[in-house]
Amino acid sequence: MEIKKPCPHCGGHVTMYKNPVPTVDVVILVPGSGAELDGVVLVERRNPPLGWALPGGFVDYGETCEQAAVREMREETGLDVTLTGLLGVYSDPSRDPRQHTMSVVYTGTARDIGSLCAGDDAGQARVFALDALPDTVFDHGRILADFAALHRGLNPGGSS
Amino acid sequence: MEIKKPCPHCGGHVTMYKNPVPTVDVVILVPGSGAELDGVVLVERRNPPLGWALPGGFVDYGETCEQAAVREMREETGLDVTLTGLLGVYSDPSRDPRQHTMSVVYTGTARDIGSLCAGDDAGQARVFALDALPDTVFDHGRILADFAALHRGLNPGGSS
Repeated sequence: MEIKKPCPHCGGHVTMYKNPVPTVDVVILVPGSGAELDGVVLVERRNPPLGWALPGGFVDYGETCEQAAVREMREETGLDVTLTGLLGVYSDPSRDPRQHTMSVVYTGTARDIGSLCAGDDAGQARVFALDALPDTVFDHGRILADFAALHRGLNPGGSS
Repeated sequence: MEIKKPCPHCGGHVTMYKNPVPTVDVVILVPGSGAELDGVVLVERRNPPLGWALPGGFVDYGETCEQAAVREMREETGLDVTLTGLLGVYSDPSRDPRQHTMSVVYTGTARDIGSLCAGDDAGQARVFALDALPDTVFDHGRILADFAALHRGLNPGGSS
């Protein structure tokens, strides 16, 4: 879509192309030990919209989506993450109230969950059991429901 | 990534954010009849880089990737396509020599392959058997190889 943005110096119109802004999110699966249910990592956002969310962020020009996903996990959760699959691409224009973003969502696993700590943009980073997830912002409730359905299908006799 | 673009009126710097530009492509499977091998639809590009390519294009601000995929198939191939799956997301910064694009690649099937015709941006639109694909531009050779491997896995006794 071609849009015109005013020049901050002269007010003239500068033409540019506007597309959905690409982001990445990762559902980091944390296997439960013993009777514990399997869980996932969520972060509490410091910036609006406030609330719990999957860790993620914008894809930079010049990096792949997979590189962006691994980088964002380090920045937001302190975790060194191995990606395990592609869950889906979520691009409903209303998914983010600020602008049209589209998220490439991966599944992943942490090399050492003991390293979990909130990054600068997050108040907290925590593991939530899949049957006790909090309300989340954006369309992350739908993404987590899709993930939980996949996880149940793959682990019909599993711990969650 | 924050970049500065010169204003065409005063030359002053206009700050903007630059991200990979999202695109969609569809591998449209055309089942072979009788002894014919299964095939896919490719289009011959009128614009550089010239050559055969999967049909596809840019995702517009305000539409989902799935909507963009269906719209682009109508525009580039004349086909009314039903999407059947998500093949992958291809985002290597060198995949397009013009700029960093990332493609969400779907699989699909045409409601009426008899409607196949090249759109304005394409010289030709044709079905190629999976074992007789031409050289393609961008990273479409890799995408088609990924698709062919998936197709062989799903149809081990199939016609291709």
